[in-house]
Amino acid sequence: MKLQEIVKNIEPLDQEWIAKAEERTAKLVMPTRALGRLHDISERLCGIQKTIQPSLNRKAILVMAGDHGVVDEGVSAYPQEVTGAMVQTFLVGGAGINAIARHIEADVFVVDMGIKAELNGVDDNRLIVHKIAPGTANFSQGPAMTRQDAEQSILYGFQEASKLYQDGVEILGTGDMGIGNTTPSAAIGSVICGADPGHIVGRGTGVDNEGLARKQDAITHGIAINNPDPRDGLDVLAKVGGFEIGAIAGCVLSAGFHRRPVVIDGFISTAGALIAWVLCPFVTDYLFAGHRSEEVGHQTMLDYLKLNPILDLGMRLGEGTGGALAMSIMQGAVSVFREVMTFEEAGVANKE
Amino acid sequence: MKLQEIVKNIEPLDQEWIAKAEERTAKLVMPTRALGRLHDISERLCGIQKTIQPSLNRKAILVMAGDHGVVDEGVSAYPQEVTGAMVQTFLVGGAGINAIARHIEADVFVVDMGIKAELNGVDDNRLIVHKIAPGTANFSQGPAMTRQDAEQSILYGFQEASKLYQDGVEILGTGDMGIGNTTPSAAIGSVICGADPGHIVGRGTGVDNEGLARKQDAITHGIAINNPDPRDGLDVLAKVGGFEIGAIAGCVLSAGFHRRPVVIDGFISTAGALIAWVLCPFVTDYLFAGHRSEEVGHQTMLDYLKLNPILDLGMRLGEGTGGALAMSIMQGAVSVFREVMTFEEAGVANKE
Repeated sequence: MKLQEIVKNIEPLDQEWIAKAEERTAKLVMPTRALGRLHDISERLCGIQKTIQPSLNRKAILVMAGDHGVVDEGVSAYPQEVTGAMVQTFLVGGAGINAIARHIEADVFVVDMGIKAELNGVDDNRLIVHKIAPGTANFSQGPAMTRQDAEQSILYGFQEASKLYQDGVEILGTGDMGIGNTTPSAAIGSVICGADPGHIVGRGTGVDNEGLARKQDAITHGIAINNPDPRDGLDVLAKVGGFEIGAIAGCVLSAGFHRRPVVIDGFISTAGALIAWVLCPFVTDYLFAGHRSEEVGHQTMLDYLKLNPILDLGMRLGEGTGGALAMSIMQGAVSVFREVMTFEEAGVANKE
Repeated sequence: MKLQEIVKNIEPLDQEWIAKAEERTAKLVMPTRALGRLHDISERLCGIQKTIQPSLNRKAILVMAGDHGVVDEGVSAYPQEVTGAMVQTFLVGGAGINAIARHIEADVFVVDMGIKAELNGVDDNRLIVHKIAPGTANFSQGPAMTRQDAEQSILYGFQEASKLYQDGVEILGTGDMGIGNTTPSAAIGSVICGADPGHIVGRGTGVDNEGLARKQDAITHGIAINNPDPRDGLDVLAKVGGFEIGAIAGCVLSAGFHRRPVVIDGFISTAGALIAWVLCPFVTDYLFAGHRSEEVGHQTMLDYLKLNPILDLGMRLGEGTGGALAMSIMQGAVSVFREVMTFEEAGVANKE
């Protein structure tokens, strides 16, 4: 399917089912909307799923992995081979996302969108290989990728998310792995939100002051020489993005296309969501922000997308951890919506 | 056991196990403390349980119920018979706390600490009856209860929590039910935190402006005529408290006594925790604040106890719902701590 066709088929949320869900919430045996945002979550799920029996039984996390040429500018505290090593850690179940996914009973899949390491020999159906290239080009010296590769990265993400939704997954979380990927994410946030790089660039996995200065320089320079058009999502992705960020944008578009909920994680996933939003602003109707990252600048992106994160626990790991953890809260919201009795059923007097 | 003996046996947390836990966290294959507060939670659980294999397998919620004489002042939007009707709803599994407890796989027990309704005919081992009196006296006209009853309410709470801990429950959540109980809770918060009632009194289950004014008057008057001593937890509880609030204080003391974690819910549970804290300030070491309630004044109480709530979702139901939902996050923190590989195990290079 072509990107244009995908975008054309995404519609805003059906308000009729939200209204029906609000009617049920009003009858639950508790003071008016006393569970706050849990009601907002369950009602939006009703709108997305067009039902008043929302369900989140099958959950999956898609971790998109890619490497970044801009790492040459000294923007990360970790060596680049960590990307491939962490992908292997995901496959053996030893990373943060694996532990949290087991806790919430979600399956984890990893997509090699363009890491440097070659993992083709790995025989594991949880690894999907769509390696566009072994890492992007250094965007502080030119475009990160071609416009065609940018579109392809989105389409691969769309394809993998769509397979899961069509296979019965009821909620999808996006995750990322890629040494250096807070740098393209900050560049995307800066371009699309129109924010000064100085306000949106943070320490990522923990660079020191010199590293932070190099990062800000690389981003400022990369934006200046590439001049990405903030109204053109493909242009922004091609010029200052990353393959895994494009794939996350594809997941978000897939959610809108298939009318299924998607939970984004932190800084990198939100950069992907920004790309998807530029392509089709209706996507935010299907999108839940899992958490507020500790990374400076995440709040600016969330505000721009008018998203209120579910958790705020000082997390900044990525991998999809914040989104996965938030699914346990969303599941609680669904339990309340479906299982709590009405005032009438419980025989309890309502407000005087 | 006497209250004095309980208090004497509560010790501050063992820092040695916390240090051991921090050592393990530092080795996990992720940037330094990249999961933020999840690490703080798992390490404190290690300190409490004196292990680096923390576990939260068996969970229980104790919902403490009581009625309040101060309801005569027109401080609640709901009729008083709702207390008993909601207790029956808990027993049939139809309330908010039941739905969330099923989601997190916790057992729910309800203790009649002094509701107006007579439920002795109910044959249900999830109902425990310690009815001190059918409701407190109206504290805006004199003490809510005798000092002896205040002590007894704490001891009953201690006893029920202790039974659960001794029976193998690894984490306990406190809950409350009692029409009008934000009024004594605000009075307790005002007295102990030294806060102006105007800043701590909120709308509870949703009183209108006139109701809110009556509530503030009742509290201001109640504190003036009773003159509770903020350094004497039993005095505060006796003069402006409630039976269920005393029982919650007993649960918190039991956590400290048995060295087990306890998760408090919102406004009413935090009032109970304040009473326990006045009796023994070490209790906060064993105490997790489940969420920040939408109720005005809760933040003042949390700040006073130096507690940082896990969730902030605009909830204001009580029943233990916020604490129960937070347990799913705590369980995630434990999964990360126990299951994530070290850098060495994963064969991943650490920071350059």
